[in-house]
Amino acid sequence: MNAITDLRANAGEQERLRIRSAGFTGPTAGLAPGNVQANMVILPRDLANDFLRFAQANPKPCPVLAVTEPGDPRFPTLGANLDVRTDIPRYRVWRHGELVSEPTDVLDVWRDDLVSFAIGCSFSFEEALVEDGIEVRHIACGTNVPMYRTNIPCTPAGVFNGPLVVSMRPLKPRDAIRAVQITSRFPSVHGAPVHLGLPQSIGIADIGKPDYGDAVPIGPDELPVFWACGVTPQAVIAQVKPEFCITHAPGCMLITDLRNTSLSAL
Amino acid sequence: MNAITDLRANAGEQERLRIRSAGFTGPTAGLAPGNVQANMVILPRDLANDFLRFAQANPKPCPVLAVTEPGDPRFPTLGANLDVRTDIPRYRVWRHGELVSEPTDVLDVWRDDLVSFAIGCSFSFEEALVEDGIEVRHIACGTNVPMYRTNIPCTPAGVFNGPLVVSMRPLKPRDAIRAVQITSRFPSVHGAPVHLGLPQSIGIADIGKPDYGDAVPIGPDELPVFWACGVTPQAVIAQVKPEFCITHAPGCMLITDLRNTSLSAL
Repeated sequence: MNAITDLRANAGEQERLRIRSAGFTGPTAGLAPGNVQANMVILPRDLANDFLRFAQANPKPCPVLAVTEPGDPRFPTLGANLDVRTDIPRYRVWRHGELVSEPTDVLDVWRDDLVSFAIGCSFSFEEALVEDGIEVRHIACGTNVPMYRTNIPCTPAGVFNGPLVVSMRPLKPRDAIRAVQITSRFPSVHGAPVHLGLPQSIGIADIGKPDYGDAVPIGPDELPVFWACGVTPQAVIAQVKPEFCITHAPGCMLITDLRNTSLSAL
Repeated sequence: MNAITDLRANAGEQERLRIRSAGFTGPTAGLAPGNVQANMVILPRDLANDFLRFAQANPKPCPVLAVTEPGDPRFPTLGANLDVRTDIPRYRVWRHGELVSEPTDVLDVWRDDLVSFAIGCSFSFEEALVEDGIEVRHIACGTNVPMYRTNIPCTPAGVFNGPLVVSMRPLKPRDAIRAVQITSRFPSVHGAPVHLGLPQSIGIADIGKPDYGDAVPIGPDELPVFWACGVTPQAVIAQVKPEFCITHAPGCMLITDLRNTSLSAL
């Protein structure tokens, strides 16, 4: 690392320390610009084994950046000074599929059998799109990305199965082609789109009514472009109703020391 | 080169020798499978200079694989034993924009000021699509690819200007995304699509009525995908009506010793 990348990685650590001290408890979009942010799923060891096989079989919705050892709160490949129990602004704690609390740390409910999964997030490829001059509609609108359940089944593994959830960004055809090229370079953060242009054919009846997030306007000269979405594993887990589970609260991601550019496959 | 690539390159030379002896005078599709075939434009030196600048400014419709020295009929980078005056099955000779003959060689009209351009052809990327299991509709139909004049202007250079001509292949959205990835690897044979999904927005009023080639059926679950087309330079030259010009006859290409796979940028 040179001085500049050191400084930038450091921005990730500084934000985590601010979050750890509960000095920040909100959504992480825009924090430590250029650093990879990750979705978080924390499961007891038995379920974690099934979940890892599910992720392996469904890498587009579920691209695993790193997995911890059971009980270990550290992610050494994502950040040297990183504690998954304290470094996310807000968590969701689930028991038997019910949301029981939204704490700012999970020290008091931590268990020795918990395995944590850091899962790639679209923030990384959106940065690459914006960097290339492509407008990302929900960012321009200041809303959440629209997400839809599709009729595309995930490959089941153990107790986990369910439909693919996709996020949608409307793009002019020329930008859609460019977006395929750009996001193909980022397989660990959902990669290339899974569909574009014909939402009905993947089971989306009304593009104006997303299942999660907010609707965005689509121009007559634009196509809806769909990427596999990190909400897929959350929806699949919700269906299984595990006895215990921790996730990040929506938008409150784990900020890592990795740079988005370092995820580029090319 | 190992023995297998030698043998394959050799297939190009063998077909050229057969063509040179006028033992073959038809379309070259399917000959020397896997070898690069090229569009041919032969212009007097002055126009050739303008044309090379036009090609440089419009690499997607006009990807130049090789240019000869004035008067020289050889393309050493495309094949050791290659004579552009005899090795194309059928030529078109143009004077002041009028088609005056369609000979099987151009030895008798050859001039010392002629510069030859070998221009990449979609056969190369179509092979890569088919290799990946993607149906190319006009091949399945046994017809010519449908081509359309668009409202997208080429960048002018010297006397050359005109609209971009595109070829169209209908694809399921999933295959369209894969086709963007595959053809992006082949910038010297038109590269990634220039458009998909909304033909009206690039000035195509009726997708069922191509300006060149034959219409193909488009399924309700398919999008029309458009690539920049090598007919663009021919249409632009036709408009200029040069005092003298030679091209290949439609479908009768120059077969080279290069392998399509060798054009892949990645």
